[in-house]
Amino acid sequence: MKVKVIAFDADDTLWVNEPYFRETENRFFELFQDYLPQHTVARELLKTEIDNLGLYGYGIKGFILSMIETALRISDKTIPLAVIEKILQEGKELLQKPVEIIDGVEYILNSLKGKYRLVMATKGDLLDQERKLKKSNLERYFHHIEIMSDKREEDFKKLIKHLDIKADEFLMIGNSLKSDVLPVLNIGGHAVHVPYHITWAHETIEAKIEHVNFYQAEKIIDVLKLL
Amino acid sequence: MKVKVIAFDADDTLWVNEPYFRETENRFFELFQDYLPQHTVARELLKTEIDNLGLYGYGIKGFILSMIETALRISDKTIPLAVIEKILQEGKELLQKPVEIIDGVEYILNSLKGKYRLVMATKGDLLDQERKLKKSNLERYFHHIEIMSDKREEDFKKLIKHLDIKADEFLMIGNSLKSDVLPVLNIGGHAVHVPYHITWAHETIEAKIEHVNFYQAEKIIDVLKLL
Repeated sequence: MKVKVIAFDADDTLWVNEPYFRETENRFFELFQDYLPQHTVARELLKTEIDNLGLYGYGIKGFILSMIETALRISDKTIPLAVIEKILQEGKELLQKPVEIIDGVEYILNSLKGKYRLVMATKGDLLDQERKLKKSNLERYFHHIEIMSDKREEDFKKLIKHLDIKADEFLMIGNSLKSDVLPVLNIGGHAVHVPYHITWAHETIEAKIEHVNFYQAEKIIDVLKLL
Repeated sequence: MKVKVIAFDADDTLWVNEPYFRETENRFFELFQDYLPQHTVARELLKTEIDNLGLYGYGIKGFILSMIETALRISDKTIPLAVIEKILQEGKELLQKPVEIIDGVEYILNSLKGKYRLVMATKGDLLDQERKLKKSNLERYFHHIEIMSDKREEDFKKLIKHLDIKADEFLMIGNSLKSDVLPVLNIGGHAVHVPYHITWAHETIEAKIEHVNFYQAEKIIDVLKLL
C-alpha cells in the first residue's frame, strides 16, 4: 500500500450516531402502539425514508419530514396534531445530542497525524455535521473535511480528484460496506470496514466482500496493523 | 484590483430562487386566510424561521419544518391534518422547481472563464444546491463549488484559505448585502452587490455601504466594467 490520504467516515465510525436515531424511532413507534404493531410502523417509516432520499438526501431534517409524512399516512390523517408537534420536538432534540467519540478514535488519529493526510468524509445535513465536528473537538486532526450529499463511486472520484491523488493512494475507513467500502474498491481505492453494532437498514448489504484492497477490522485501532 | 478568484453567490444571483419561496409562502398564507390576516401569518413564519436557523440552517427542508411548526402554533393545533400534508407537498414541489438562469449570467461566465478562477459560493441544503447546479448546466464554468452552512466572516476566511489566496485577491458577487458583501469587505476582500428585485426579509439590511472595495452594480454584466 502506498497510501497518502486516509479518509474516515464520521457517523458510527468516529462518533455515535445510529443509536440516537434508534431511540427517536422507538419513541415514534410508541406513538402508534395502540393502533399498529411496531414492525408495521418501522416498515412504513423506512419505505418513506427511502422514497424521499432522492429529494431530501441524508440527515436529520429529512428524517423528521419522513416521520411526519409516515404519521399522516399510517393513521389515515386521524392522529392528533400533538403527535406532529412531538415529532418536531424529537427532531430538534436529535439535532442537539451530545457527541460521543468511539473508543480508539483519538488514539488512531494521533498515531496517523503527520504521517498521512487525514480527511473526514461524511454524508448528512451540512450544518449538523459541522456541529458534530465542532463538538467532537476532532477538527484539528483533519487536513480536509468533506460533507457529501451521497457516497457513490462518482462522489469518491470527485473527492480523489479534489485531493489531487491517485485512487490507489486513497484509503477509506468506515462502518458501511455499502457507502464506505464498495464504491471505494470499485474505483481502485483501499477500504477498511470497521463494523458498528447497529446499522441503518438502508445501509446493510448481504454480500461477502473479497477484494485485494479490502480489509476487515474489528475495531478502529486494528487499522494501525495494516499500515 | 489584483483579483485572482471571482466567487458568485447562486440563489438570486445566478438563478431565480426567492420568487419560488414567495409563491410557496403565499399558498401557505392562503391556508389561514379565513382566520388570520396575511401579515400576521407572515410575521409568525419569519419568527419561526429565524428562531430555527441555528438548528436547521438555510434551505428548503428547514423552511418546510418551520412552516409546519408555524401552522401548529398559530392555529393552536386546530388545523386539519390535510394542511400538514399540503405543506409537505408544497415543500416537495419547491425541491423540484426548474432552474431559471438570470439574464447575463452565461455571458459574464463565458467572458471571465480562463481569465480568473471562478467559484460558486452558496448556502442552503447540500443536495438541493447540487441539484440546482446540475440542472443549471453552469458547473463547467467553475473551478470550485463551495456549499456553505453560513456566510459569516469566518466562513469566508476558511474559503479563502482553502483557495490559497490572499483576501484582497478575492471578489464576491451576490445579491445579499448581509451575506455576500459585508463579511467579505470586513475581512479585506472585494465585493459587488447585484440586487435582485426580491430579497428575503432576513437578508435585508438598512445600512448604506461606503467602502473602497465595494462596488454597486445594477446588473451582473456591469461587473465586466469593473475588471
